[in-house]
Amino acid sequence: MNHAKRLRTLRRHMAAAGIESLLVTHLADVRYLCGFGGSNAALAIGRERASLFTDGRYTVQAKQETSGAKVVIAEKSALREACAFLATSGVAHIVFDPSSTTVADLEVMRAAIPSNQRRGFFRPSPTSLVADLRMVKDAEELVRMEEAALLGCRLFEELLPKIASGVQETTIAAELEYAARRNGAEGMSFATIVASGPRAALPHGHATSAAVPRSGFVVLDFGVILSGYCSDMTRTVFIGKASDAERFAYDSVRDAQQAAVDAVIPGVSGGEVDEAARSVLREAGLAQYFTHSTGHGVGIEIHEAPRVAAAQTQVLTPGMVITIEPGIYVAGRFGIRIEDMVVVTDQAGRVITPASKALIEL
Amino acid sequence: MNHAKRLRTLRRHMAAAGIESLLVTHLADVRYLCGFGGSNAALAIGRERASLFTDGRYTVQAKQETSGAKVVIAEKSALREACAFLATSGVAHIVFDPSSTTVADLEVMRAAIPSNQRRGFFRPSPTSLVADLRMVKDAEELVRMEEAALLGCRLFEELLPKIASGVQETTIAAELEYAARRNGAEGMSFATIVASGPRAALPHGHATSAAVPRSGFVVLDFGVILSGYCSDMTRTVFIGKASDAERFAYDSVRDAQQAAVDAVIPGVSGGEVDEAARSVLREAGLAQYFTHSTGHGVGIEIHEAPRVAAAQTQVLTPGMVITIEPGIYVAGRFGIRIEDMVVVTDQAGRVITPASKALIEL
Repeated sequence: MNHAKRLRTLRRHMAAAGIESLLVTHLADVRYLCGFGGSNAALAIGRERASLFTDGRYTVQAKQETSGAKVVIAEKSALREACAFLATSGVAHIVFDPSSTTVADLEVMRAAIPSNQRRGFFRPSPTSLVADLRMVKDAEELVRMEEAALLGCRLFEELLPKIASGVQETTIAAELEYAARRNGAEGMSFATIVASGPRAALPHGHATSAAVPRSGFVVLDFGVILSGYCSDMTRTVFIGKASDAERFAYDSVRDAQQAAVDAVIPGVSGGEVDEAARSVLREAGLAQYFTHSTGHGVGIEIHEAPRVAAAQTQVLTPGMVITIEPGIYVAGRFGIRIEDMVVVTDQAGRVITPASKALIEL
Repeated sequence: MNHAKRLRTLRRHMAAAGIESLLVTHLADVRYLCGFGGSNAALAIGRERASLFTDGRYTVQAKQETSGAKVVIAEKSALREACAFLATSGVAHIVFDPSSTTVADLEVMRAAIPSNQRRGFFRPSPTSLVADLRMVKDAEELVRMEEAALLGCRLFEELLPKIASGVQETTIAAELEYAARRNGAEGMSFATIVASGPRAALPHGHATSAAVPRSGFVVLDFGVILSGYCSDMTRTVFIGKASDAERFAYDSVRDAQQAAVDAVIPGVSGGEVDEAARSVLREAGLAQYFTHSTGHGVGIEIHEAPRVAAAQTQVLTPGMVITIEPGIYVAGRFGIRIEDMVVVTDQAGRVITPASKALIEL
């Protein structure tokens, strides 16, 4: 990854926004900008150069992983020392990200500089500078994300023979996660969702000790982390033979999902893509069961910008990677969700999770 | 779990601190107080009762999981609606946790109430009310934590035959995590650390594709989540035959670890326990390689209060569960860490991770 280039781009955006120095503490942002993946970090981007502050647990790791920034091992608080360093470097202000800085952190930051310098010195960033950069993936990132997405698809296909009535949801998750690890995944992007029968009506139904019932839908929503990038996909299979009503519901979700995928074109907004899915379910009389948004950006983190939700005005541009995942949830009865990862290209949306979306009856 | 009782205790502490209403948004705190385990929640604790605000994804799950609080499905923002609700309930102020509230969240909160009511209405909590409660586990929590800790030990013992020269670190992690899941774990407490050979000098050396070398230490640091509670343990094994110097280093860490375990008595401070470990390593001439603190509280989260670190004045009291995990890290050469979970009892510290700490040569 070309961290020096990312830092240069960030500096250009900082200059354009009149920002003299930037404090980056959100760990995914730190990793994006300089490569360091530890659990405690403050990246101080000053006028001339960037310095990464972390602690003694990371003395070796920080030097191995970091590029584009000088590593400083803080004696006590990485956050405090990063602020003190910037304050003494002659900058007129420090800009921070209000969405990843706690009120308590801000107190630590203020206490790090002389009291007569504090007024107006720390300024919340007017825009999400780093999140905006991360939203558009570069070529190397897209390669990693496609690899992660393809691994997810392969794992799903290998998992199918293991899904059957009577098997515990956690056993299915165990088999999936084991195969992920054996195929090089650093971990899962989020707690694996295996939600069967009436539990499928829980959009976030993490795998439990419940056994897959004799008949009904099973929602499988999972992701792997491969080379630092998250995949995310959902398929819903049916145990037994689906009734006409169940098939109608499934087909409606699939049509909604496809309509949203088809709506992905550079220049459309997240809100328009959301509406493409929602309108199909509305026509099918199922919109009231679609209780979440259509998707989200994905990358180093499982949830990133942009949002693909009602009224979102953020426009899609080439290089963004989003999920498209409408679903319907009928309390006490069943749930269905279908999710792909989609790369925004120059012309359209390219699905990078090519697993079949036809209804699979097991 | 008796959530109503926890909320009553919290209310007593609120009253003692002159707090009329409390907004709880840290997810682990929310789960502790009312049982809800979703990813978006604001628990509004008013004068008379508590209300849990979440979103449409959790309509069913929130009702299933929550007790002691009324569930409200927010139309747009759970956080905003929770604040608006409290503001119209006649309370004079809302207290929030500054260590889990971002600067951006606080803006959302302020915008939720009439501008003429804002001045001084949101107050950072002077103490960590909920963290302080969670620090001392009740009987039911201790049962769960012991079960999680014992599962960790069993998994370690079953893993030993799979650790050998040439095996990839990720394969070892895969086997461990698979067995964890098969034994009912909801997941791992944190990214599994398998750090072999020179990589053992990285205190947070997550498993990589590196193969275990012919000879050297392998640090295994991992935890399971079982019934919502985290375990955490570390053992360091040796591949091949340890030299006298390596054995001296190992024994020194083991002695330091034991000294800290022995130092756990109700009434001592976290700083004193830390010093017990550090002084043993100092006498062995190894203190400069012990680059982190001795331990931390553990429970619903892998890192909780209290801290067991130099100069920490927090006193240990019965019911706390802490880790004791000194280690030494010699860059480019090797690393060693030994970690137990310890329950503070009425008289002493009781180790709940009984796996052997004798040097295992494989």
